[in-house]
Amino acid sequence: MRNLDEHTITQAVLTRNANADDARLREIMTSLVQHLHAFARETKLTEPEWEKGIEFLTAVGQICSPTRQEFILLSDTLGLSTLVTAQNHKKPDGCTEATVFGPFHVQNAPQYDLGADISDGLPGVPWYVRGSIKDIDGNPVPHAVIEVWQADDAGFYDVQKPELGQETYQGRAVLQADSEGLYHFKTIVPECYPIPHDGPVGKMLQALDRHPWRPAHLHFMIISPNHERLVTHVFREHGEYLDSDAVFGVRSSLIADWVEHQPGVDPYGEKVDTPYFTLDFDFVLNPVTR
Amino acid sequence: MRNLDEHTITQAVLTRNANADDARLREIMTSLVQHLHAFARETKLTEPEWEKGIEFLTAVGQICSPTRQEFILLSDTLGLSTLVTAQNHKKPDGCTEATVFGPFHVQNAPQYDLGADISDGLPGVPWYVRGSIKDIDGNPVPHAVIEVWQADDAGFYDVQKPELGQETYQGRAVLQADSEGLYHFKTIVPECYPIPHDGPVGKMLQALDRHPWRPAHLHFMIISPNHERLVTHVFREHGEYLDSDAVFGVRSSLIADWVEHQPGVDPYGEKVDTPYFTLDFDFVLNPVTR
Repeated sequence: MRNLDEHTITQAVLTRNANADDARLREIMTSLVQHLHAFARETKLTEPEWEKGIEFLTAVGQICSPTRQEFILLSDTLGLSTLVTAQNHKKPDGCTEATVFGPFHVQNAPQYDLGADISDGLPGVPWYVRGSIKDIDGNPVPHAVIEVWQADDAGFYDVQKPELGQETYQGRAVLQADSEGLYHFKTIVPECYPIPHDGPVGKMLQALDRHPWRPAHLHFMIISPNHERLVTHVFREHGEYLDSDAVFGVRSSLIADWVEHQPGVDPYGEKVDTPYFTLDFDFVLNPVTR
Repeated sequence: MRNLDEHTITQAVLTRNANADDARLREIMTSLVQHLHAFARETKLTEPEWEKGIEFLTAVGQICSPTRQEFILLSDTLGLSTLVTAQNHKKPDGCTEATVFGPFHVQNAPQYDLGADISDGLPGVPWYVRGSIKDIDGNPVPHAVIEVWQADDAGFYDVQKPELGQETYQGRAVLQADSEGLYHFKTIVPECYPIPHDGPVGKMLQALDRHPWRPAHLHFMIISPNHERLVTHVFREHGEYLDSDAVFGVRSSLIADWVEHQPGVDPYGEKVDTPYFTLDFDFVLNPVTR
């Protein structure tokens, strides 16, 4: 312990951590320390590079706020989120795939009845979203809780607009499927957007010659007592950035046709005098193994 | 890119980063992404564990301030700082060893003449520190800049005392060796101290059943134009925690006898009516290879 060098330090740290009561914490810290040290050795990390790393991580932490989670962005842009999501949601064929959670979910989104306009006044092209929630055997899952969140027609989420205040939500809702497992609501078509790139993660992407854009999508989180929680997106077929999503979130099975319609009568029988879109998307939940 | 899973995500991220102009950045990011992903795969990291990790790193960043650098503490307590220091300062035998920088250095420390009392009024046991700065061939290195910083007799650095204000320094000095490479100054004996452990790194140490203590030491940074910058400590022989330094900074060659003297006449010929200590420590600098 008094003569540590670059060869002996790793074992010294593991030995020091070996007293932890929590076996899982020991396991995680052992792997973490080994990989952290292997990274520094493999790259022959210099002291100025280490300092830059410290400054970068500090800046990532400092820009975090109740409405901005830069460490999730970092995890997303380094593919860690996709890896963790994928390895925790291996499902039978036929179940809807999960994808990244992203940094824009909030607690306490407003509750709406089926059929409501969840955009809450956002300007944009009307969009009617509907579908079913079933289990792997094709049976309807009644009364599942459906949380949805989305960007607006300029690519911004409500939480990115401080002028709205903390109590105003737009394009964000908690709904509940009906007794047949059906859901439907009205909103506006969300656009592609760049992830927040005025902070350290944006600088990192720029240094890596990567763009910060995500393809257009609608977030869903579906919760039902006897099924695995599903966190996913539905992407727009033929949209931009499907092949270069900044956060590696696209899955083929989650790309759907967002169908354009000419002015006329909307799915609720109301007159609509602009073009509008519909999306039909059915979800299949994975049963919880008990 | 549309069908990523836990097996294909790593290569997808590396491919996306492959456009970076900066070859060194590519190299570092490739190693980082591979080890980060290997860590998540090896531990089969779960989503709640990932969330805990995000929360932990966010808290580490949020507690950082101009006088507190929790990410350096994290690097220190995980042994990364010692690894990076060691692999960047392989020196010929006979050169003084480097050790961790630590989080308590500040820019713009006050300048003092040789012989000054750098404690600037700190209560404690008087300590007279002196020695030489030489090169590897035994020649004096004249006029080297010597920065020193230390804890007080309760184990606190000045920057940990907000009541001092930002412009007041205690136990912190910039000195310059004389034309023969000799230095000497007066201060007080610093005590062992726990690294700041009221934040996330303290919680981590607690969860790992590790104490936060560092053995008593004095920090030195020595700068001379034709030599490698030396950042090091001098530790107290027979002091507590030499074998369990929370930040893995102890090196045998940096442990010295802090000699106790009875009241009498101090090295400057002044009467001293309490016991006092002396430290004699000679530094050997590594020449810069050009």
